[in-house]
Amino acid sequence: MRTSQYVLSTLKETPSDAEVISHQLMLRAGMIRKLASGLYTWLPSGLKVLRKVERIVREEMDKAGALEVLMPVVQPADLWEESGRWEQFGPELLRINDRHERPFALGPTHEEVISELVRKEINSYKQLPINLYQIQTKFRDEVRPRFGVMRAREFTMKDAYSFHLSQDCLQKTYDAMFQAYCNVFDRLGLEYRAVIADTGSIGGSVSHEFHVLAESGEDAIVFSDGSDYAANIEKAECLMPSIERPAPSADVAKVATPNAHSIEEVSAFLKVDAQQTVKTLLVQGVNEEGEASGVVALVLRGDHELNEVKAEKIAGVFAPLTFATEEQIKQTANCEAGSIGPQGLSCPVIVDRSASVLADFVCGANETGFHLTGVNWLRDIETFEVADIRNIQEGDLSPCGQGKVSIKRGIEVGHIFQLGTKYSEAMNVGVLTESGKHEVLTMGCYGIGVSRIVAAAIEQNNDKWGIKWPQAIAPFQVVVLPMNMHKSHRIPDIAEKIYADLQAKGIEVIFDDRKERPGVMFADWELVGVSHTIVIGERNLDEGIVEYKCRTTGEKQSVKIDEIVDFVSAKIA
Amino acid sequence: MRTSQYVLSTLKETPSDAEVISHQLMLRAGMIRKLASGLYTWLPSGLKVLRKVERIVREEMDKAGALEVLMPVVQPADLWEESGRWEQFGPELLRINDRHERPFALGPTHEEVISELVRKEINSYKQLPINLYQIQTKFRDEVRPRFGVMRAREFTMKDAYSFHLSQDCLQKTYDAMFQAYCNVFDRLGLEYRAVIADTGSIGGSVSHEFHVLAESGEDAIVFSDGSDYAANIEKAECLMPSIERPAPSADVAKVATPNAHSIEEVSAFLKVDAQQTVKTLLVQGVNEEGEASGVVALVLRGDHELNEVKAEKIAGVFAPLTFATEEQIKQTANCEAGSIGPQGLSCPVIVDRSASVLADFVCGANETGFHLTGVNWLRDIETFEVADIRNIQEGDLSPCGQGKVSIKRGIEVGHIFQLGTKYSEAMNVGVLTESGKHEVLTMGCYGIGVSRIVAAAIEQNNDKWGIKWPQAIAPFQVVVLPMNMHKSHRIPDIAEKIYADLQAKGIEVIFDDRKERPGVMFADWELVGVSHTIVIGERNLDEGIVEYKCRTTGEKQSVKIDEIVDFVSAKIA
Repeated sequence: MRTSQYVLSTLKETPSDAEVISHQLMLRAGMIRKLASGLYTWLPSGLKVLRKVERIVREEMDKAGALEVLMPVVQPADLWEESGRWEQFGPELLRINDRHERPFALGPTHEEVISELVRKEINSYKQLPINLYQIQTKFRDEVRPRFGVMRAREFTMKDAYSFHLSQDCLQKTYDAMFQAYCNVFDRLGLEYRAVIADTGSIGGSVSHEFHVLAESGEDAIVFSDGSDYAANIEKAECLMPSIERPAPSADVAKVATPNAHSIEEVSAFLKVDAQQTVKTLLVQGVNEEGEASGVVALVLRGDHELNEVKAEKIAGVFAPLTFATEEQIKQTANCEAGSIGPQGLSCPVIVDRSASVLADFVCGANETGFHLTGVNWLRDIETFEVADIRNIQEGDLSPCGQGKVSIKRGIEVGHIFQLGTKYSEAMNVGVLTESGKHEVLTMGCYGIGVSRIVAAAIEQNNDKWGIKWPQAIAPFQVVVLPMNMHKSHRIPDIAEKIYADLQAKGIEVIFDDRKERPGVMFADWELVGVSHTIVIGERNLDEGIVEYKCRTTGEKQSVKIDEIVDFVSAKIA
Repeated sequence: MRTSQYVLSTLKETPSDAEVISHQLMLRAGMIRKLASGLYTWLPSGLKVLRKVERIVREEMDKAGALEVLMPVVQPADLWEESGRWEQFGPELLRINDRHERPFALGPTHEEVISELVRKEINSYKQLPINLYQIQTKFRDEVRPRFGVMRAREFTMKDAYSFHLSQDCLQKTYDAMFQAYCNVFDRLGLEYRAVIADTGSIGGSVSHEFHVLAESGEDAIVFSDGSDYAANIEKAECLMPSIERPAPSADVAKVATPNAHSIEEVSAFLKVDAQQTVKTLLVQGVNEEGEASGVVALVLRGDHELNEVKAEKIAGVFAPLTFATEEQIKQTANCEAGSIGPQGLSCPVIVDRSASVLADFVCGANETGFHLTGVNWLRDIETFEVADIRNIQEGDLSPCGQGKVSIKRGIEVGHIFQLGTKYSEAMNVGVLTESGKHEVLTMGCYGIGVSRIVAAAIEQNNDKWGIKWPQAIAPFQVVVLPMNMHKSHRIPDIAEKIYADLQAKGIEVIFDDRKERPGVMFADWELVGVSHTIVIGERNLDEGIVEYKCRTTGEKQSVKIDEIVDFVSAKIA
């Protein structure tokens, strides 16, 4: 490929609406262009990367015995009604009517469609297990699409679904998918971690996420320094402190805390450590019919953060977690939000494990502008439950019981689930077993955010000049970069020969035949981030050498002209 | 691949709702499954074929210098408003609102999106010409989806768009695309024709369709036996007859034609040849604002058929062509539809060229149950226009003036257009020229129905046992078919070795390791239609031979076991 016949489309300026580095660099390097909010066109360089990611994913899925299919983007509503998700799914599910006013949705995921296929197609235990996947366009109508293709509305995903007669069989496929995902991310050349994860709205029991590690990652990943344990912070359990709760040694006293609303302000005003205070949050409760009803108090140690995923799983708490309105706070605690405390509340009280071992602590007095000191569980607050509802923190004991916790940032690029029978029961997906009985199947599902990987790879691999693609997914393998070619007698022939020889070896080369200044060309290719560059300049030609540069490692080397093709081929291999 | 680890999903019965052979065979051979009206899931065998078609299309587009991009399925309405198609496009354009009630459409084609991209990205004549393509999911909300993937609502298309500063430059790219399409269909191994075509709702001037020839084709293709001329019947001009109109020799007489409504009935009743009669059709007229207004009479020779595409292009005729209502007929001709005639009508009269050279002809009397005989142009009907508004017929003079016409059936699988400035003017797509002036670009567009090709290939290549895939797109290259393998001591080892040796050569083999009767296995593979089969049976093993069968040619041959792999490799090459 020659740049004169290509659309390089690099930009000097960083577009103002791009917040994260991958979004900025994908725009600047001519990878994508925005069509509308959360909708992007992939330009030639970006699509080359996307297709390379796709190919690696496809090869590893095939190797693991999964069979590729292709399901429609547009899905009939009746299947979603069968699974119950037509009601449950939020406005991210874009619902549409066709010309005959029949309801459909743009597929954000395909559990329903694959279940419909399998219940019709697979009838006998002899056809099991089966693992079907697709690489396909998905749509999620995000309320606030952002970060470019990282959180777009339309995106490319690999989704796989497996069906089994036993948990053992599911576990085997799950393990094979786990390994296939490791192979994918190894081949992509990314630093990643598989971590224990919450199953969220998809459902199921066991689940792992695959994260590309990057400081800009939206997710917090918890690691143990004493074991292999790694989990999404959503899922990382905070163990019960091993210390006993001290006996009460102070009496309750009400103190005025004027203008002190936050824990920081209260502890500064009262000159006590935040660890000796508790904060009380009121959230929506739930009745037996699953409807929002009443409020529930959540109590955390002052220096701790609420873990919403853990909290909304507590019996009696409404999901998704919803904070109480000002009016509900007034009715329940008779004060402003900054002065709520667990003593004397008429609603259920859930106390985090760490808060439950405090004695003589500070809390809100349920009277605006006042706090209580010297408060003690059981003595002063008789009825409460203890649960794990906080985020684990750096330095905490690891959930596995071994070592201490450190926290890194990650970008979720894959997620595998043991779904169990959630969909197959609702949609009656079963087969005849060897003994002739009809049995409902157990399911697994396995997703990879194909287009998101492109952005995550950039978040992990960039510097101030641009992208540093891992070699396996760079848009080109080699750039041939002749300097001032149009002013030289010798350079064109040499550059053309190197270009032709590389192509003859099946290497993807881009030949920069533009009449640009060397500075512009260098800047463009550092921005685009192709791994291997061959610079051909007039000065070195007398010595018969060209310059090799590696964008990834920074390596620079002078190489003889007649050795450069073999030299670069060896680098690529 | 082993069938035991594959989803073959063949069906014995022909599904009742499949009308055409390709739809029946795609269902029976386990290629596709219906999800909802016009929505299909591609099963593994079908997807393998689809991907092979895609790959051939991609390779030839790349070779022709086109650059691959990927545009969103979901498109913002404002672009369609700019081009004017938000109003013009019928309900095939599925319009949707997102969660913020912003209007979008599912893309049936991407002229607007590519124009938006190019007007932002391409600013200088130096960046031209450019030809961008994608292989992508499209949606058309057909009123009556049918024939499986032949006329589905969701389908895969390759669409390319080129931009130029001159007609010469457009013509060069158009010619290159023409050649690329020929290469694609040659490589696919299909019998096809490129034919002159109408540009329809896409717009533009010059246009060619590519048709796969098949008796079941929906389109009629006109060929000359005296030249290379080939055109869609929609576009094939009927030349003005070279004969002079004879002078009138009879007087007008009104005759009762009770119960004779059609031309067949009238000519039988009056004992005149249908060629000596004319039929008169009333259609909707149009005013200067482009609104439907009044009616227009179209007059054809009794044995000729109206060409609606030609008719709706006549000035004064409303497009799309709309027949007059019963009430309009009553008002204009004061009779039933079967008795309309051109004499005495107050509306404009358009006479087909062939009808215009008749003398002493029969036509309706504008009185229910009566016709006129001995009618003559000019003498009896003073005001009329002559135009080409009929379908050409087998045996007619070729539009090119050389030879006679024959007609074959075709399935449209590709369509290329010289669009001109229709979109680029409406959407202001231009660049700065060398002299610094802003100039609007001229456009070409080039489509291939990727998923439709799969069905068309079957329509052309099948017999009563099933599909006969052209080798280049068969789901597998070779089937290894051991007979009663589970009852044999010798067969498994031989079959496994042949399987392994073929795989080692990079050949896509399916090994049928099922415990099925030979008859079932033969029937399945004749249905699926893989080109090359190796049958390993106990009887021949003593002689050290296996049997080779070719599904496409019907060739059968006994081959020595240790020669079969080379034998089949040679067949494939």
